[in-house]
Order: sequence, then structure tokens, then C-alpha cells
Amino acid sequence: MRYKVTIAYNGRNYAGFQSQINALAIQDVIESVLEKIFSEKIRIVMSSRTDAGVHAKGQVFHFDSDINKHVGKLKFSMNSLLPDDIHVIEVKQVPDSFHARYSVKKKTYEYLINIGEYDVFLNGFAFQCFYKLDVDLMKKGAEKFLGVHDFTSFNTSSIKEYPNQVRDIKEFRITRKKDLLKITVTSSGFLRNMVRIMVGTLIDLGRGKKTLQDIDEMLNKPCKTTRRYNADPNGLYLVKIFY
Amino acid sequence: MRYKVTIAYNGRNYAGFQSQINALAIQDVIESVLEKIFSEKIRIVMSSRTDAGVHAKGQVFHFDSDINKHVGKLKFSMNSLLPDDIHVIEVKQVPDSFHARYSVKKKTYEYLINIGEYDVFLNGFAFQCFYKLDVDLMKKGAEKFLGVHDFTSFNTSSIKEYPNQVRDIKEFRITRKKDLLKITVTSSGFLRNMVRIMVGTLIDLGRGKKTLQDIDEMLNKPCKTTRRYNADPNGLYLVKIFY
Repeated sequence: MRYKVTIAYNGRNYAGFQSQINALAIQDVIESVLEKIFSEKIRIVMSSRTDAGVHAKGQVFHFDSDINKHVGKLKFSMNSLLPDDIHVIEVKQVPDSFHARYSVKKKTYEYLINIGEYDVFLNGFAFQCFYKLDVDLMKKGAEKFLGVHDFTSFNTSSIKEYPNQVRDIKEFRITRKKDLLKITVTSSGFLRNMVRIMVGTLIDLGRGKKTLQDIDEMLNKPCKTTRRYNADPNGLYLVKIFY
Repeated sequence: MRYKVTIAYNGRNYAGFQSQINALAIQDVIESVLEKIFSEKIRIVMSSRTDAGVHAKGQVFHFDSDINKHVGKLKFSMNSLLPDDIHVIEVKQVPDSFHARYSVKKKTYEYLINIGEYDVFLNGFAFQCFYKLDVDLMKKGAEKFLGVHDFTSFNTSSIKEYPNQVRDIKEFRITRKKDLLKITVTSSGFLRNMVRIMVGTLIDLGRGKKTLQDIDEMLNKPCKTTRRYNADPNGLYLVKIFY
């Protein structure tokens, strides 16, 4: 049977979600816990390969096993064995037609920027911006990303691997609560570092290093060599995956 | 001249504020930074000896030096040298009559309790309560602490060192935002572990291990041997000191 698992994690101490040589990934931790529980080697299929330092409030993966486990007990066993910075929110049994990556309809990311005095309690949980930002201008910039565009200039996926870099941004919102900016981005598909580079571009815009025209140009003349600012991974949260 | 410094810190990695043998205290880190800046040994006088793991949003200390430093530059120098989990909010020059401990008028603490699903992002920043709590009953219990009482049953300061354990609680409020309870306590004086033991007692009340009558009895019959529950230090924040 196929199990669908939704998890949250503080990505700070991990080299990202996907297994890597010589670095601890979240996938490794989860697979070792599942191996203990199922007494067999389990290989998980993740929805999103979050980068080193990126957090998740709703990452999803699936895996298969012939062993039929009660989903409530499985959640409990996993959480008993997982470290404090990874938590299973939900376990479900799903049809074999479900696929954590291919069945995705859309995903929502959030990015947090602290534009006020440095806050020890946001360290590792938001990007600390020491520049003065023009938030209204950033909101105007954010509107430009909405809809269908060629995002070649705004990601680090290779053209060879992903020849079609046209994506559809369904939501791109900037909200402010005191000194904390929250940027919410929803799309049916993202390319590598795409959210962080779009956010980095808006930070450059807000501090006067880029103009609205520069963003138009980056969108209209897709180019992999444009100078790009990949915003701090600690500000990024994979919030929800819609199936 | 005398300097008054207000700082915030994430207490998680420290053995409390006050210097100790064989454990890194926040005081040690600050004194070593000040020694680098002033090129002389500096001894700080703190307002509150927060325990290991307790956080602060507004701890205060003072120190004396014959060297006249620009307070803005001093704040900047200190923050450049301090680790990520300690931050100087304000530096002021004050009259010699000011004393970080003896001039205190009142102090406010906050205590955070997560009563919902375990949250990786609150780990170390709030007490995770897995018991179902009767919050309305806890609010009734909290009212009993308000005003002037003998708090002998609610602290771990020795009677020998502190013969008078009567204190005046000016504010004791429980507010709820989704699954996060915030308890705010203000008094002109606190005894050792007093906030954590009062909060622990309210948790015991909320989960049915203690009654309102038990609290009355603990207040009316001061006793050092009553069984007390000292709530998790990671939930406690020293928020503001009033002078």
C-alpha cells in the first residue's frame, strides 16, 4: 500500500530535503526512522527538494510498503523517533495512483523578512534586512510576477534539464505586520531557487538597486546570466502542497 | 560614568544569565565583549538572574567605566562582537544613582504554552503541553495570585536568605491566540522560580491535578515542602523592566 505523509521541519540544521553525499538531509533522517518502524528498507518520494536551510510547514512525501500500519499509530511512532526539528503532521493511506511529485496541483511558499531591529527570536526563521525597503514599490514589482511568464531569468534550473521555463504564478502577495514582511507565492510549478530569486529581486527593487523596468526586462528577455540575488534560505517556508 | 544596557537573548544555549563555574552564562559572554571594547576588565550588575534556558526581550544591566563612549557606537560595537542569540537593544549613560537591580520599580514576564499540535517552530520558544487544559479554570486560578500575598509556597528562594516572601502581583493575565496561551505577570518583586512555579500550578489546575482550593491553601498556609511543578524554562521570557 501507499502512504502519504505530511511533515513540518526546521531546515536550519539540514543540508536540504534530498539525500546527499557527506551531509545530513531530512530524507536520510526520515528513511532511517521508517526502516526502524517497518523493519525493511523504505525509499521515500518527496514532493519538493527544499534547499539547505529552507523550512517546511507542509512538505509531502509518499512511500510504499506491503505492511499495513494503522496511520494514527504510524504518525505517533514516527514522531517518537524523529528529532525535535522534524514533525509528522498527518499520515494517510492513498491509492497507488497518488504520486507526491506528479500529482501536485499547486504549491504555496512563504518568505519572511524582518525589516526592523535585529530580533534574536527570528534568527534562522526570517531574513534580517538591514536596508531600508520601499514596500509599496516591492508590491508593484510583485504584481509583475503574477500570471504566465518565462521565468528563465529567475531560477537556477538548467535549460538543458528544464527546456520549458514558463510557469504560472497564481498568487504573489506581500503583507506587513509591524516590522515583519510576509511574501506568499503560489504556483502550479516552481523551478530551482525560483522563489528566493524572485524575493531577492524584490529586495533589490525595494532598496533601489533594481527598477521596475529591470524586472520587465528580466521577464521579457529570458537570460541565465543576469545578475541574480538568491535570498537567504532561512526566510523560506514550503507552506502547503495542493493535490 | 555609568552605562545602562538593555538586551534580548535566546536563553536556550546558556546556563542562565549569572556567571557559573563550568557552564557558559550570558554574563560571561557580555563581560568578555565589553573587555575587548574597553580594553579593561568590566564587571556588569544585572537586574535579574534568569535561569538556564530562560529568554529575555528586555533584560537590563549596568556597569561603570572611566572611558566615555558614544552610546550608539557602543551598541553597534557590542552587537558586532556578540553571538547571534544575544542582542543589545539600547545603551544609555545614566547617573551613578541608577542601579540595575535596586532601582527596579516592577518587572514583566511572559510565559508561552502551546496547547495544540507540536510545532517545530515553537520548539525551545514555548512549553509544549500535551495535556488538555481548562483555560477558563486557569484564568480563575490566575486571579487568586493578584495582589499582595505570601508566596512562600510558590518559589525556591530560601527563607533564610529571603525572610519576607510577601510580594505584590500587579498583573496576571492569560490570553489565547489560536493554540498559543500567553501568560503575562507583572510585580514589583519576584522570588526564585516564582513565575515558573505559579505557571506550573496553573497547568496542574488546568489539567485537573490541582483545584482552586489547593491554590487557596498554598497561599494561606505558606509552606516550602508543598509539591510544586516548576514549568519548563524555555517558555519563560523576561519582557520588560520598569525603572
